[in-house]
Amino acid sequence: MDCPIPKNEFDKILLAHGSGGSLTSKLIQEIFIKSFNNDLLTKEQDGAVFNLNGMKLAFSTDSFVVNPIFFPGGNIGELAVHGTVNDLAMCGAKPVYLSASFILEEGFDIKSLEIITESMKSAADKCNVQIVTGDTKVVERGKGDKIFINTSGIGIVPDPADLSPSNVKVGDKIILSGTIADHGIAVLSGRENLFFESEINSDTAPLYDLVEKMLSVTKNIHVLRDPTRGGLATTLNEISLKAGAGIQINQDNIKIKNEVKAACELLGLDPLYIANEGKLVCFVIPKDADKLLAEMRNHPLGKDSGIIGEVTDEFKSKVILKTTIGTKRILDLHTIEQLPRIC
Amino acid sequence: MDCPIPKNEFDKILLAHGSGGSLTSKLIQEIFIKSFNNDLLTKEQDGAVFNLNGMKLAFSTDSFVVNPIFFPGGNIGELAVHGTVNDLAMCGAKPVYLSASFILEEGFDIKSLEIITESMKSAADKCNVQIVTGDTKVVERGKGDKIFINTSGIGIVPDPADLSPSNVKVGDKIILSGTIADHGIAVLSGRENLFFESEINSDTAPLYDLVEKMLSVTKNIHVLRDPTRGGLATTLNEISLKAGAGIQINQDNIKIKNEVKAACELLGLDPLYIANEGKLVCFVIPKDADKLLAEMRNHPLGKDSGIIGEVTDEFKSKVILKTTIGTKRILDLHTIEQLPRIC
Repeated sequence: MDCPIPKNEFDKILLAHGSGGSLTSKLIQEIFIKSFNNDLLTKEQDGAVFNLNGMKLAFSTDSFVVNPIFFPGGNIGELAVHGTVNDLAMCGAKPVYLSASFILEEGFDIKSLEIITESMKSAADKCNVQIVTGDTKVVERGKGDKIFINTSGIGIVPDPADLSPSNVKVGDKIILSGTIADHGIAVLSGRENLFFESEINSDTAPLYDLVEKMLSVTKNIHVLRDPTRGGLATTLNEISLKAGAGIQINQDNIKIKNEVKAACELLGLDPLYIANEGKLVCFVIPKDADKLLAEMRNHPLGKDSGIIGEVTDEFKSKVILKTTIGTKRILDLHTIEQLPRIC
Repeated sequence: MDCPIPKNEFDKILLAHGSGGSLTSKLIQEIFIKSFNNDLLTKEQDGAVFNLNGMKLAFSTDSFVVNPIFFPGGNIGELAVHGTVNDLAMCGAKPVYLSASFILEEGFDIKSLEIITESMKSAADKCNVQIVTGDTKVVERGKGDKIFINTSGIGIVPDPADLSPSNVKVGDKIILSGTIADHGIAVLSGRENLFFESEINSDTAPLYDLVEKMLSVTKNIHVLRDPTRGGLATTLNEISLKAGAGIQINQDNIKIKNEVKAACELLGLDPLYIANEGKLVCFVIPKDADKLLAEMRNHPLGKDSGIIGEVTDEFKSKVILKTTIGTKRILDLHTIEQLPRIC
């Protein structure tokens, strides 16, 4: 489906280029992959995986521009640690070392910086990673927004499952590790000073421990992804496109907290496209799905795990949602940005 | 020497916190190192060097916020590649893989982005490194400034010299690989639309090839540093402080292009504090200095190399400049930012 935005709009960067949706994908394909063109990059995983002197490593990077920098359930600092740790985990890698690079706006409060770096340290400790190198830049007032943080990370891939959308097969079961849309709604409520009946907290959390336990149960996991920017629908679309496979998910099996669902309805937002920061989806061969699910449910970060759908031989490269009332609809990549600066 | 800025000013980030001078150092010590505290970070090299499964690796990160993004002799893209490649090289590491993460301002011209990514690719090819993973964020108009780029990099330390200021010894000769202040003056001229009689170009260049040749001549190099932000004087101060050693340099031996010198005089800037992006200083034991110098002069990036001074047992932790007229003056860490956003 073509994008409805007039072509000449593509001369300039739009907020939607950062949404994780179709314009982000276009930018990645037509600018970054075209320019940097190499085998590792074109795999478009959450990180690059390569052999270095016989050791299998993963390497990932992420810049964080979340607004507000403090939100219910977290702040930009721990989000920056969890984000890169999770990108490595989605490559099946045990995160080991992180870098941290700061772009600070003139006038930013140093006390806030200290709170942020302390929570980065605390998050890093909980993930058993060390922040070993860094950088700081300052830009003039009005040329940045308080603080942007880049974290990059190195992980070791210990006993690799072969994680890649190209391994996805018809029949694979799709497991989601918990409720969706918590992070996006928490950030939005912090940004707009919305107060819901019960506070909605970000789900920001490090996922490697869960991944390690999952890989101890089965090596037949074909893909691991954390549905961050663009939410579950965007992540499934990326996998479906890469795999050339059809994906069908059942709305009834996707868990959303009542207060998050209510907030989405109030705000006219589709929770399937809203960011998560402590959830993963995995594609696993059917015979291992139940034992994997049982293992995931034993883990605090996977207790609400469920099988949400499967890979089909219908609808090639499309994601189909079977709704509660039994109809089917296509979940497309979004062309607009419904929630900018969510991470 | 205490900083003359009133103490309560330290509640907020100042431009000088990004200068590489005494406020940057204070921020690093009192916030980042205090929070992230670990052995690798406290070494404060240009990157972290560690063993991973018996392989010695270096890991470095740098965010680039240079203004203007296109300047005489280069642009933010190749600068971002050279910057991280050089940080790895200063650890004695052969750069192998880079990440690239972009923070784009809404409305930024996509054609410019393409020129920048193409020159990143071209710079990476010349350094034999690959850009293997990336990220893109977009911020609203007025919350960023066109484009900020973070590059992080992994390098292999092949046959390590032991590079650390703590190895510096009285008598070590200090070699500088060429002229100073070209980059800073080039960026400033681009920013302010200054036109000098002859165009002054940035010296942005990748230094690993030079470093490799240097390390093939002698392992008795004690420190390698590229005098970027804050210039030669700041870099020498950092080494002197870390080493607890006195450094004396001779003004007559420091090469500055005539047009750069003229521009500095016109603008009231001290070239010793102005950024370079394709130069290095090294500390080497006296007996190997001449053969190292000869090797450096054989390399296109080292043809103007010269011995500029030595480590003395006078003036502990101070850098002393012997001027052309024979007087001596202390080169301090600057407390102000004379040229913001130079890299």
